[in-house]
Amino acid sequence: MIRFESDYTEGAHEKILEQLVKTNYEQTPGYGQDVHCEQARQYIKKACANDNLAVHFLVGGTQANTTVIASVLRPHQGVISASTGHINVHETGAIEATGHKVIAVASEDGKITASQVKNVYDAHWADPDHEHMVQPGMVYISHPTENGTIYSKKELQEISAVCQDCGLPLFLDGARLGYGLAAPGNDLGLPDLARLCDVFYIGGTKVGALFGEAVVICNDNLKKDFRYHIKQHGGMLAKGRLLGLQFETLFKDGLYFEMGEHAIRLAMLIRDAFTRKGFNFLYDSPTNQQFPILPRSALEKLSAKYSFSTWARIDDEHTAVRFCTSWATQEDAVKTLVEDIMSL
Amino acid sequence: MIRFESDYTEGAHEKILEQLVKTNYEQTPGYGQDVHCEQARQYIKKACANDNLAVHFLVGGTQANTTVIASVLRPHQGVISASTGHINVHETGAIEATGHKVIAVASEDGKITASQVKNVYDAHWADPDHEHMVQPGMVYISHPTENGTIYSKKELQEISAVCQDCGLPLFLDGARLGYGLAAPGNDLGLPDLARLCDVFYIGGTKVGALFGEAVVICNDNLKKDFRYHIKQHGGMLAKGRLLGLQFETLFKDGLYFEMGEHAIRLAMLIRDAFTRKGFNFLYDSPTNQQFPILPRSALEKLSAKYSFSTWARIDDEHTAVRFCTSWATQEDAVKTLVEDIMSL
Amino acid sequence: MIRFESDYTEGAHEKILEQLVKTNYEQTPGYGQDVHCEQARQYIKKACANDNLAVHFLVGGTQANTTVIASVLRPHQGVISASTGHINVHETGAIEATGHKVIAVASEDGKITASQVKNVYDAHWADPDHEHMVQPGMVYISHPTENGTIYSKKELQEISAVCQDCGLPLFLDGARLGYGLAAPGNDLGLPDLARLCDVFYIGGTKVGALFGEAVVICNDNLKKDFRYHIKQHGGMLAKGRLLGLQFETLFKDGLYFEMGEHAIRLAMLIRDAFTRKGFNFLYDSPTNQQFPILPRSALEKLSAKYSFSTWARIDDEHTAVRFCTSWATQEDAVKTLVEDIMSL
Amino acid sequence: MIRFESDYTEGAHEKILEQLVKTNYEQTPGYGQDVHCEQARQYIKKACANDNLAVHFLVGGTQANTTVIASVLRPHQGVISASTGHINVHETGAIEATGHKVIAVASEDGKITASQVKNVYDAHWADPDHEHMVQPGMVYISHPTENGTIYSKKELQEISAVCQDCGLPLFLDGARLGYGLAAPGNDLGLPDLARLCDVFYIGGTKVGALFGEAVVICNDNLKKDFRYHIKQHGGMLAKGRLLGLQFETLFKDGLYFEMGEHAIRLAMLIRDAFTRKGFNFLYDSPTNQQFPILPRSALEKLSAKYSFSTWARIDDEHTAVRFCTSWATQEDAVKTLVEDIMSL
Repeated sequence: MIRFESDYTEGAHEKILEQLVKTNYEQTPGYGQDVHCEQARQYIKKACANDNLAVHFLVGGTQANTTVIASVLRPHQGVISASTGHINVHETGAIEATGHKVIAVASEDGKITASQVKNVYDAHWADPDHEHMVQPGMVYISHPTENGTIYSKKELQEISAVCQDCGLPLFLDGARLGYGLAAPGNDLGLPDLARLCDVFYIGGTKVGALFGEAVVICNDNLKKDFRYHIKQHGGMLAKGRLLGLQFETLFKDGLYFEMGEHAIRLAMLIRDAFTRKGFNFLYDSPTNQQFPILPRSALEKLSAKYSFSTWARIDDEHTAVRFCTSWATQEDAVKTLVEDIMSL
Repeated sequence: MIRFESDYTEGAHEKILEQLVKTNYEQTPGYGQDVHCEQARQYIKKACANDNLAVHFLVGGTQANTTVIASVLRPHQGVISASTGHINVHETGAIEATGHKVIAVASEDGKITASQVKNVYDAHWADPDHEHMVQPGMVYISHPTENGTIYSKKELQEISAVCQDCGLPLFLDGARLGYGLAAPGNDLGLPDLARLCDVFYIGGTKVGALFGEAVVICNDNLKKDFRYHIKQHGGMLAKGRLLGLQFETLFKDGLYFEMGEHAIRLAMLIRDAFTRKGFNFLYDSPTNQQFPILPRSALEKLSAKYSFSTWARIDDEHTAVRFCTSWATQEDAVKTLVEDIMSL
Repeated sequence: MIRFESDYTEGAHEKILEQLVKTNYEQTPGYGQDVHCEQARQYIKKACANDNLAVHFLVGGTQANTTVIASVLRPHQGVISASTGHINVHETGAIEATGHKVIAVASEDGKITASQVKNVYDAHWADPDHEHMVQPGMVYISHPTENGTIYSKKELQEISAVCQDCGLPLFLDGARLGYGLAAPGNDLGLPDLARLCDVFYIGGTKVGALFGEAVVICNDNLKKDFRYHIKQHGGMLAKGRLLGLQFETLFKDGLYFEMGEHAIRLAMLIRDAFTRKGFNFLYDSPTNQQFPILPRSALEKLSAKYSFSTWARIDDEHTAVRFCTSWATQEDAVKTLVEDIMSL
Repeated sequence: MIRFESDYTEGAHEKILEQLVKTNYEQTPGYGQDVHCEQARQYIKKACANDNLAVHFLVGGTQANTTVIASVLRPHQGVISASTGHINVHETGAIEATGHKVIAVASEDGKITASQVKNVYDAHWADPDHEHMVQPGMVYISHPTENGTIYSKKELQEISAVCQDCGLPLFLDGARLGYGLAAPGNDLGLPDLARLCDVFYIGGTKVGALFGEAVVICNDNLKKDFRYHIKQHGGMLAKGRLLGLQFETLFKDGLYFEMGEHAIRLAMLIRDAFTRKGFNFLYDSPTNQQFPILPRSALEKLSAKYSFSTWARIDDEHTAVRFCTSWATQEDAVKTLVEDIMSL
C-alpha cells in the first residue's frame, strides 16, 4: 500500500532529526525562551521582511487556532469563517469551548470573499436587535484552504481592507502554508501575509516538522500577554527548544520552501495525469491536495494499491477523493501512481 | 554554569532519539491510531498489570490535567486540590478556563489527606445552601507532589477509599511519576495506582521523553468519548506516533524505571551532602527535587557555579532553593556539586 | 400609535398583580422553596397529567435555554437546532458561551423534521473522523417556532422517536407555548409534551406573566442537581415566590389557556383580513404572530398608525412584516386594524 | 414564627407595587429601552452627582457580578476577592463558569485592604513564572460585606488608589448598599462610589424592590457593548420596564435611603439589646445584619419564636447566628425580640 492519504504520514525532514540529535544534551531554559527559539524567531522575521513581529511556537493547529482566537475576541464576539473552515468543522468545537460562536459563511471551495465579510458585518450592525446577536469580532481564513485552493494577492488585499475598515482582525491559518507558497500561480509571499494579516501561522506539522506551528502576530494590539494564553491552552511546551530548533532548521536556509516545492511538483504530476485522462476535479487546487472525481471502477482499482481519502459522494457512480503529496512523498511512488492512472 | 534548575533542560534519552530516526519514514495513520501507540498501550497495561485500562497519549501536563478534569466534571462541580497543586497555581487558570473551580485545601508539603477530602465533602453537603456553592466533583493529587513529597500506599488507599465512598473520581498527576516510583521508601507501584485511582498519568516530559504524558483511565465510566476531549483541547497530535514510539521505548525494557533510579541516586547524593553539612530542608523530599534552606553566603557561592531555583524566602538570612536531578543529570556534575557543598 | 410589535409590550394579567399585592407581606423562604412555588408545581404537574416531573421557575427564556442545555451536554457535544432557532440567532451566543456549538440545520419556517435530526446523527457517526467533530448531544425545537408555526402531534412523535433511538434528549422551547396550545389545528396538549419531550418550558413572559418560564424536566436522568445550574446561571431569584405566585395564578383555573385563546382569536381576525385582501404570508402561522407580505404603499399606510416589526425584504416592492397579538391585545385595536386593512 | 432570617422574605415596598399596577397597561419597547428605565437612569445619575455614568438594570446579584466581571476580564485574568466574598463562596462557581479564577485573599470580617491588593499584584509580577499563573485583572469588594461590615471613605480611597496604580478596575458589589449608606459611622455616599469605583451596583432585591440591581459603570473603558453581555448572561429582561419602574420609584424621592434607615434603626435596637445583655458579636456590624454569639440556652429559647440563620459554631456551647432586618421589618416584631433578649 502506497500512502497518499494525508501529509502527516511520516516523521520529519532528516535535517530536523539531525539537529535534534545534535542538540540533545544542550541545557536550555524551558518554555520557549531558549536560543533555538530565539534564532528561529529571527529567521522568520527575516523571511517576513519585518522586524516588528511577535513569533510564538505552538504544538499543533487546533491549539494555534484556539489560542489565537480566544486571545483576540471579547466574550460576546464570534469569528467569521468559511463554513468549510477547519475551526468550524474539524476541531471538535474547540472555539465554542472557549465561549465563541463560529459565524459560518457559505463556501464551495474553502475560500470566502471580502464582500461576504462585509455583508456579515453590515447585516449585524444594521439589525436593530444586534445586541441580541453575536458580534462579528474577527475573520479566520485558511491558506491554502482545506480544499487546496489559495487566495490571490488581490483577494487577500480586499479581505484585509474590509477587515481594517470594519475593525476586524484578520487571522490566516497556514497549516499548509508551505504548499501554498509553492503553488503555481501563487503571488503571495510571507512579507505579504505579515502586511495584510493581523496574525497568521506558519504550519510545520504538515510541512516537514515533527510537529509545531509558528504563530506570527503582526498587529501590536494583539501581542500583549500572548504567552499567558499559550500556557492556559496547554500549548507551552516545557522543552520549547524542540519547536525552536525545528523552525530554525526550516527557515535557516530555505528548507521550508524547498519542501513545499517538492510536494507541489509531485502533486502537479498527479493532477496532470487525472486531467489527461479526462477526469474532473471537485476543487481547482494548485496545491498538494488533489480532489479528482473517480468513477466506481477507477476508485476500486486505485484503492487496491494506494491509500487516499474519500471526500464526497458525487452520485451513484462517482466519488470525489483526495490524494495528498508532502515533503516526504517519494518521486517513484508518484510515477507509479501516474502510470496506473494513465492505464485506467 | 552547571544546571540543576529543572528536570527538563535536556532533550530525550538517546534510545528515544534512535527510535525516532529509525522509524522516520514509516507511513502511519495519524492521531494516535498507529502501531507504536498501540504497542506502547500494551506495554503500559502490562506494567500496570491490568488489561482493562484506556491509555491515551497527550503532549503535556497542563493539557493532560485540563483534558481529564474537564472530561469528568459536570458544569457545577469543582476539583479538590492541594493549595499547592499545579492546577491551582501554575497552569494560568486552565481549569477555570474550562468552567470549573479548583477547591483548594491547605497543604504545607504538597500532600492532602483523606480526612481533608472528607471534610470538604461533608461541609458541602451539610450546608443547607449547598446549591449555592460549587459541588466537589473529583479529587486531584500530584505524586510526587510539586514539593517532591510522595504518598505512601496507606495514604493513597485512605484517599481512594474516601473518594469511592463520596463518589469522587480520584485523579493522580504523575508528571514526575518515574522519580516517585524510584524514591527510597516508596511502596507504590503502577499496579497500585491503576487499582486505587480512577485516572492518572505517567509523565514523560520530565522523565526522559522529548515530551508526552500517558493518561491511564482505570474507571470504565470515565472512558467514553475521551478522544473527543483530547481533540477539543488541542492535544491530539497529528503524528501521534511520536508519542507512541516514545512510550514504547520507555516501557519496552524498563527504561522508564531505570531513568527514575538514576535521578534519585544522584538526588540522594545532593541531599546527603546538605544534610551532613547541617542544612535544613523546606520539605522532606525523597525524590529528584531537593529543597535545602541556604544562608546567604552559601547561596551566593553556589549561585556562581550552578543554576537552581529560588523557592521561598525564609528570613532575611535564609532562602529555600530547589535543586533538580533528572534522567540526564551527569554523575560528574553531582560529584562536583557535592564537593562544593561540603566545602561551604 | 397602536402597538402590535411584540407580545411583551404590557405588564401582566391583572390577576397576577392582584396576587402580588395580596401576598406582598407574607414571609417566605427564598430561592423557589416557598408555598407558592410548590403550589404552582402541583398545578403544572396536574395540567401535564404527570406526577413524575421536576418543575423549576426561571426568570427568562435565554436563561432557561442556556441553563437547560448546559446542564445536559457534555463538553464535546452540541445541540441540534433549526438555523432559525432562538438559541442560534437571538441569544448573543449564550449557548456557545457555555462551551457548546449550536449545530444548525436548515429551516424555512422554523421547524425541523425527524429525518433532519437523524441525518445529522448518522452523518456524524458515519464519518471516520467523527472524534474531530462536535458530537450531537441533544435536540432543541421551539413550539410555536420563532416564525409562528407549530408542530403536529405526528411530527413531534416522529422527532421524539428519533431522539430516543439516538439517545438525544429532546428539549422544547415553549416561550410562546400558550399561543401554540390555542392555535387552530393544534393537536398537542401539555400531557403530550410531558410524554414526548425530555425537558420543555412553559413560557410566562410572553403569555401574561410579568416574567418567568417554568422548566419541566420529564426525563429522570436530567433532574439531578438542576438547582445548582440555575444558581450558576444567575437564574435563582432570591424572592422565588414571585415566580411561584405567577404560575400559581396562571395554572390554578386555566388562566394560561384563556389568555392563549384570546390572543389567537384576535390574531385570526388579522390573518383573515389580510387573506381576504389577497395578501400572501411569509409563513403559514396559526398562532399569535402573523407575517403578511406588504407592498410598499400598504406598509406606509399601516406604519403611520400601527407599530409592527419589519421581518424580511422580499423584493424592491414587498416587505414581510410581523404583527403580534397577546393576552393584552385590545379587541377594539384589532377591529380598527382590520378595518384599515380592508380599506387598503 | 417571626422571621429575621434574611432581608428578602417579603415582596416589595408598596409604592413599587402601586407603580406596577398603575403602569401595567402602558405599551413600552422591551429590553430596557423604555421611559421608566430612562427616568430611573436619570435619577441614579443625579443621586451619584455624575452625568457620565452608564446605568443598566439586571435581575439579580449573581447575574450582575458575573456579567460585570466577565465583561471586564481577558481570558487569562482573574478577579481578586475576599475569601468570604459572595463570588468566591455563594454563586455556584458562576465566575469560574465564565472562565476566570477568583483570586481569594484572606479576610476575617469580609473586608480586604489596599495593601492586600498590592501584595497580590506585586507577587504576581515579581514571579519569573508569572505567565504560568492567573494574572490579577480586577478587584471585587462587597459593601456592606457579607458579614455586615463597611468600608470607610479612607479605606475605599486607598483601595481605589492602588487599583488605579495597578491598572485593576475596581468593582463594588452593593447588594445591600442601602443598608451601608444608612449605617452609623458611614462616610461614603453614592458620589464617592461613582468617583472611586470603576463599576458598582446598587442592590434592589434586598432593599425594597421585588428584584433588580442597578449596575453603574463609571469607567468609560468598561462601557462598550455592555448590553451584549447582559443579553448573553440571560439578564436582559424582555419587560425591562419592570426594572426601570422599580428603580424610578426607589430613587425619585429618596425612598431607597429611607428604607435603608428604617432597617438600620431596627438593627441597632437588636444590637443594643444583645450588647446590654453582655453578648459578644462575631463581626462588628453597623448594618442590617447582626451576628451575636449565643450560648446554647439562649439559642434554644430564641429559636422557638424567631427564625434566624446559624452562621458559625464557636465552641461546644456557643454559636454565632445572624439576625437580619430589612425595609419590611415591623417595629413591633423588633420590640418583642428586644424584650425577649433582655429577659434571657
